[in-house]
Amino acid sequence: VSNWYQNNAPITALPIDDRAIHYGDGLFETVAIRAGEPRLWDLHMQRLRQGCARLGLPAPDEITLRNSLNFAVENSEIDASYALAKLIVSAGSAPRGYRRAEDAGGDPLIGVFAATPLPADLYKNGAITRQCATRLADQPQLAGLKTLNRLEQVLGRSEWQEPEIFEGLMCDSDDHIICGTMSNVFAINKQTISTPDLSRNGVAGVMRRHIIESLGRSGVTVTETRLSPQEVQDADALFLSNSQFGVIPVRQFGEHQYPGTAMHQQVADILLTSGIAEHGQ
Amino acid sequence: VSNWYQNNAPITALPIDDRAIHYGDGLFETVAIRAGEPRLWDLHMQRLRQGCARLGLPAPDEITLRNSLNFAVENSEIDASYALAKLIVSAGSAPRGYRRAEDAGGDPLIGVFAATPLPADLYKNGAITRQCATRLADQPQLAGLKTLNRLEQVLGRSEWQEPEIFEGLMCDSDDHIICGTMSNVFAINKQTISTPDLSRNGVAGVMRRHIIESLGRSGVTVTETRLSPQEVQDADALFLSNSQFGVIPVRQFGEHQYPGTAMHQQVADILLTSGIAEHGQ
Repeated sequence: VSNWYQNNAPITALPIDDRAIHYGDGLFETVAIRAGEPRLWDLHMQRLRQGCARLGLPAPDEITLRNSLNFAVENSEIDASYALAKLIVSAGSAPRGYRRAEDAGGDPLIGVFAATPLPADLYKNGAITRQCATRLADQPQLAGLKTLNRLEQVLGRSEWQEPEIFEGLMCDSDDHIICGTMSNVFAINKQTISTPDLSRNGVAGVMRRHIIESLGRSGVTVTETRLSPQEVQDADALFLSNSQFGVIPVRQFGEHQYPGTAMHQQVADILLTSGIAEHGQ
Repeated sequence: VSNWYQNNAPITALPIDDRAIHYGDGLFETVAIRAGEPRLWDLHMQRLRQGCARLGLPAPDEITLRNSLNFAVENSEIDASYALAKLIVSAGSAPRGYRRAEDAGGDPLIGVFAATPLPADLYKNGAITRQCATRLADQPQLAGLKTLNRLEQVLGRSEWQEPEIFEGLMCDSDDHIICGTMSNVFAINKQTISTPDLSRNGVAGVMRRHIIESLGRSGVTVTETRLSPQEVQDADALFLSNSQFGVIPVRQFGEHQYPGTAMHQQVADILLTSGIAEHGQ
């Protein structure tokens, strides 16, 4: 079940001349709705603002957008106690051709989706991951953004069908792990927590940002660096983050099993304190 | 004026859950319609077929697609003596998430657009071009394809507003010219004709292919190679190709003026013989 709205009116379709369809000319955010409220709203808005600036699109008015989100959440048939909202900012309707109109930028689309917590087993015993063959291209101009150009993630996700595999980790062309198809990656090594640098590719998740900032406030520095698959494999522990599931430990990467599946206790405690850590059903 | 069809029925919008909107999960072709008939149809179908195979999407049935194109061209209000059809093959409607449904693949969308020949002056005296700052990322898995992920071209095209500039040439991260935002590039040097290699990025235009094959049949080999901006500037002559305008000489690239604007006579003759060369209004 999903419900989409634009300008506080339900919609079921997008005009065929919208640039989201033709060029992926736009951005999106996937916001967790908990007890009717959007989680990490400010971080979502910050990324959306930065994305609009980098793409040269007008950023939506955030108060209007928040009101529209509230309207959508309240008016949809979705149980808002635990749900998900997808916000799309497109360059909007335009004549054919790569050139944007001077007044490019449509009104945001807001979809509300039913969601269920992931199984508690994943939070407790960790997820199984694999390495994708699909590479993430180096594109500093779009790196970190959640644009509507997501074919690399689609191809990465299409590489496996096994339901027991939770996520695929994707490398850049230099054989460094950058992201999961739908998550960010953190590696723990003794006293060090590191996560791939996303200045050339990948999506800079709001949960990743929240983790880095929360740990930072507790005196734990997360190093943004380059991580080879071997380094990821050699880590004491690995975990994934995303705006919906929060944080999940990894128990297996390809054939490699991690020694412990429990997340580094300090990380777990800090996330719990910040109100993020979920423990599944 | 445009008219869109799907399954021989007019449409004005795309269902909001279509993967073209969310991920750019699909491909397109822009076909020139001349005297009611699609030009270079077989080359368009060949590229579309290859693209579907590489993206893992079912290729549309080509006879059905051709019939649908004919239907659209005949039923639209567009003057089909000189027009343009855009074909979109999307992964279609699906639940949220990067993972495709097993039956991914929607019915092709066909848009018919009014078109007018470019001014004769462009064909005769050549076009003014510039170099874009936006780079094309190396992505061999998608290289050559006309996918719905076109943000790089959109950003490239957004770099200039001057109406006298016809096209922007785009480099890869290694400073080699790859493509124009909407065209392919050929450089002529004495007896050599070369065009950028597109194995790592860029769009392999059907007109580019037609030119390479037509010249080849006349004993002229086009070399697919790497071309620096300096080499492009030092060329005796430069020309652009695209499925709509055919071939247009370049008279200026940035500040550099080419010694002659007339296309290498042999190239021009061969294209004329193949029925492609247009001369504008």
